[in-house]
Amino acid sequence: MADVERKMANGKTRIDFQTDPARYRHWQLKVNGDVATLLMDVDEKGGLFEGYELKLNSYDLGVDIELADAIERLRFEHPQVKVVLLRSAKPRVFCAGANIRMLAGASHAHKVNFCKFTNETRNGIEDASETSGLYTICVIGGTAAGGGYELALAADHIMLVDDGSAAVSLPELPLLAVLPGTGGLTRVTDKRKVRRDHADVFCTTEEGLKGKRAVDWRLVDEVVPNSKLEALVVQRAREFAAKSKRPAGATKGVALEPLKRERSADGVEYSAVSLEHARAGRLVTIHVRGPDTPPPRSVDEMVRQGAQFWPLRLARELDDAILDIRLNEFDVAAILFKSSGDPAQVLAYDAFLETNKDHWLAREIRNYWKRVLKRIDLTSRTLVALVEPGSCFAGTLAEIVLAADRSYMLVGQRDGDNRPPPVMALSDANFGALPMSNGLSRLASRFLANPGNVDKVRAARGTMLDGERAEQLGLVTFALDDVDWEDEVRVFLEERASFSADGLTGLETNLRFGGPETMETKIFGRLTAWQNWIFQRPNAVGEAGALRRYGSGQKPVVDTKRV
Amino acid sequence: MADVERKMANGKTRIDFQTDPARYRHWQLKVNGDVATLLMDVDEKGGLFEGYELKLNSYDLGVDIELADAIERLRFEHPQVKVVLLRSAKPRVFCAGANIRMLAGASHAHKVNFCKFTNETRNGIEDASETSGLYTICVIGGTAAGGGYELALAADHIMLVDDGSAAVSLPELPLLAVLPGTGGLTRVTDKRKVRRDHADVFCTTEEGLKGKRAVDWRLVDEVVPNSKLEALVVQRAREFAAKSKRPAGATKGVALEPLKRERSADGVEYSAVSLEHARAGRLVTIHVRGPDTPPPRSVDEMVRQGAQFWPLRLARELDDAILDIRLNEFDVAAILFKSSGDPAQVLAYDAFLETNKDHWLAREIRNYWKRVLKRIDLTSRTLVALVEPGSCFAGTLAEIVLAADRSYMLVGQRDGDNRPPPVMALSDANFGALPMSNGLSRLASRFLANPGNVDKVRAARGTMLDGERAEQLGLVTFALDDVDWEDEVRVFLEERASFSADGLTGLETNLRFGGPETMETKIFGRLTAWQNWIFQRPNAVGEAGALRRYGSGQKPVVDTKRV
Repeated sequence: MADVERKMANGKTRIDFQTDPARYRHWQLKVNGDVATLLMDVDEKGGLFEGYELKLNSYDLGVDIELADAIERLRFEHPQVKVVLLRSAKPRVFCAGANIRMLAGASHAHKVNFCKFTNETRNGIEDASETSGLYTICVIGGTAAGGGYELALAADHIMLVDDGSAAVSLPELPLLAVLPGTGGLTRVTDKRKVRRDHADVFCTTEEGLKGKRAVDWRLVDEVVPNSKLEALVVQRAREFAAKSKRPAGATKGVALEPLKRERSADGVEYSAVSLEHARAGRLVTIHVRGPDTPPPRSVDEMVRQGAQFWPLRLARELDDAILDIRLNEFDVAAILFKSSGDPAQVLAYDAFLETNKDHWLAREIRNYWKRVLKRIDLTSRTLVALVEPGSCFAGTLAEIVLAADRSYMLVGQRDGDNRPPPVMALSDANFGALPMSNGLSRLASRFLANPGNVDKVRAARGTMLDGERAEQLGLVTFALDDVDWEDEVRVFLEERASFSADGLTGLETNLRFGGPETMETKIFGRLTAWQNWIFQRPNAVGEAGALRRYGSGQKPVVDTKRV
Repeated sequence: MADVERKMANGKTRIDFQTDPARYRHWQLKVNGDVATLLMDVDEKGGLFEGYELKLNSYDLGVDIELADAIERLRFEHPQVKVVLLRSAKPRVFCAGANIRMLAGASHAHKVNFCKFTNETRNGIEDASETSGLYTICVIGGTAAGGGYELALAADHIMLVDDGSAAVSLPELPLLAVLPGTGGLTRVTDKRKVRRDHADVFCTTEEGLKGKRAVDWRLVDEVVPNSKLEALVVQRAREFAAKSKRPAGATKGVALEPLKRERSADGVEYSAVSLEHARAGRLVTIHVRGPDTPPPRSVDEMVRQGAQFWPLRLARELDDAILDIRLNEFDVAAILFKSSGDPAQVLAYDAFLETNKDHWLAREIRNYWKRVLKRIDLTSRTLVALVEPGSCFAGTLAEIVLAADRSYMLVGQRDGDNRPPPVMALSDANFGALPMSNGLSRLASRFLANPGNVDKVRAARGTMLDGERAEQLGLVTFALDDVDWEDEVRVFLEERASFSADGLTGLETNLRFGGPETMETKIFGRLTAWQNWIFQRPNAVGEAGALRRYGSGQKPVVDTKRV
């Protein structure tokens, strides 16, 4: 199994998740009134790592980072855009899916986290549709294979050219002995609701399907002759735009300026986030800071502040910090979340966003926080919240405590520290505005046994809750006084770092998502787990496995023993 | 990784799923009026395979086969029993869980299928409670560790002795670097609804929890001082018995006589089932036969027929055949289901069971069929139904066609065969009486996109449907005429047998269970997939992994890289 980290093609040693359209190598983003076109035009020589070429619009993480960036920019910088046309700039191919040589040479850890990110990007496309009315129409004029068709599946509408060669396919199993694991199988059964036996035929037919059968079997929404294509694309865009709730007319967007970010050997300093490694203990602390100023007095002022508006600024920095740990710091066992600031100010910002929740920017910011918090929920590191004097885990920031696998809160003051005992507080934002992937608020997920507890906690909204009260209400795992704090936390973290990393990933994934399932939890829970299993099996990644031998001219050797 | 099959301790070469109380080596089943006691008393020397001893009431597949048998016998042979007391006959230990040395030395394929069977057994305990009112009270007077506590989790009520040493624990992660994968994590979050951070603490605390905290955290229902235990057990049994809908008074049961079964080199001949291997093609055919006689005229006559009553006889034989393939025939790629008989007779039996569905035996038989069909759904082999002349895929037997990954039905007659074209037919049983693990009927699962199709099909109940009509209604994948049949089916089966076995397992598992999730599908879909992944990782099964080194005195070597 290839478990050696590849060299990055740009000579750097860390994957950077920040980009902007001027730097895109693989996509062209064109905005025309309320319709944007996102053209996939992958630069063969633009792979993130050495050792492969991105032929036929195949992608690696670098390509997907640009796609994720483009979707965010459409949400924030182009609020007037109601429809995105997702197309290929290359002839006869829409997208060939994840690059196979990249997969064959990637470490298991990179592969798993690459798939997680691409899944989040596709979920983000669907979230834009559902919560912002930013619809995606995918126009396939050529082949959409594997991850290419999985990308199409994220769209609201799939148009397939009827030219005798354009086709959709999920050839992962027959070709590579792996699964269509970027949501493919789940979206086929649960979004497109393809009949299970038809899905079986489709997923085992290397060349895929086209024409009438592709429509009859619900794989695409329509097949269109080339001669009528452009007119019909315009018509469909108009139809979807008419349904959109995005602001009418020429609304000014908010530029997502480059993040303020300084990296040192052991950390990263953002404007409202500090990331600090304690490498010996395999720990990293993410410290989030509350606002320095009260919320703006009007939505216009919020728009003027733009990317500097504290909730947006913090969310972007936090997202970047999490992704940096996920893909660049595999040795980190646990993330410790700390905060500092005035909890009342955090609540004031929550109140501002709540009051203006119908304003497009306030809505986008809430939904951005929702996605960042989901990203935290799905991070395979132990998540620990430490609620200490000076912290501001209130409202939206209290969600971080609720997302943690465990939380510790100090009762009373600390010896030699005259700051008051820490408090937590909840706001309206904690009761449904920031749902987890399972569709429930973190509080509802927490209190599956006693939904009445959610009401008790709701009654305490706005109250500053000390450690004892927070523990009584079930908001933190342990409330400890200064005498016990250091030993308890230290022993826990040392023990945690000694456990099997794989075992913890499985354990935490199962415990974090109790209760109901959604398409999203099915993708991350069920499909991903099977794919991770298969990504370990010799049939795929062994020396003679299908993934390794693809394109080599040698046939893979398959162990036929069913497990 | 140990992937060598172990030698069986009894000198045989196949695992046999048939047993009876007179032959139990690990359990004592005592029936006293409406309360039964199932005493776990594992014979250390009674391991199924060579190379380990079953100390401290630890179990292997052989122990679980007896447990599964005992539960079935309580349902059929003792209809008056309303409560089972699940206890240990050993001092200071309830059950130490799955035997670690057995796990460490088992092949991946055996391990995965062992876990599947033990999961099905625990689901069966819950099914007995839910559908028959046969409740289980688990009395823990000692340690219930890992699989021991997972067994307790299947009960309706867990009593823990409060003696300072009795405790419940899930030490899999800290001790063995694997998961509590026999439903443990899922039942903790979704059945017991333990708060997620409490669950995190519990599942990482090797010694587990006891006393008040075990109750407060919902891990057990009550802790009871030793002095009051027996009185309270009697009282709880009385309370649960009062809620039971099982027949009152001295109802006579139906003896589950030994199956008629003759094994040859390439098959097994039962009374209503034939199993035939075509080993070169890695295929096995399971041929089910319809009834020879019309249904009985009364329920008394059904009881008199007992285990010979065709639906019960067939279900038991089919179950045994499936298990035999699963655990003894890892080289089988696909199971072909065929049938022969009079579809009208099958419908007549369905009508008889429907008319008498409130009779305890009719209810048990329906529920037995439900479990056998679920076992088919969960079998990791490609499932193919071939609907040919002379077949009787009607009503309950039509569920086999609907359970298949693909089905082929002949249109018209076969050249040189003067039997009429095959038909399928549906009965009331197809519309909810035999739900899948996801809680839906197989028809509802099939028609997720168009629930209206279920109504269309319902309107055709009782009608003999030929190939074209069955295909129109969406009941079969392909309806083929004699000219195409042989080549189409042959090419499909050859191709299927050439695919990666692991990939197929993941693919089929995902495609078979579209739509909603239940605790059961979460156990088999999410938890099992993560466990299978972890069962492959060096941290567990590597030479220096925790599972391999357990009890050796050597500390395991753990790769701490998070994936």
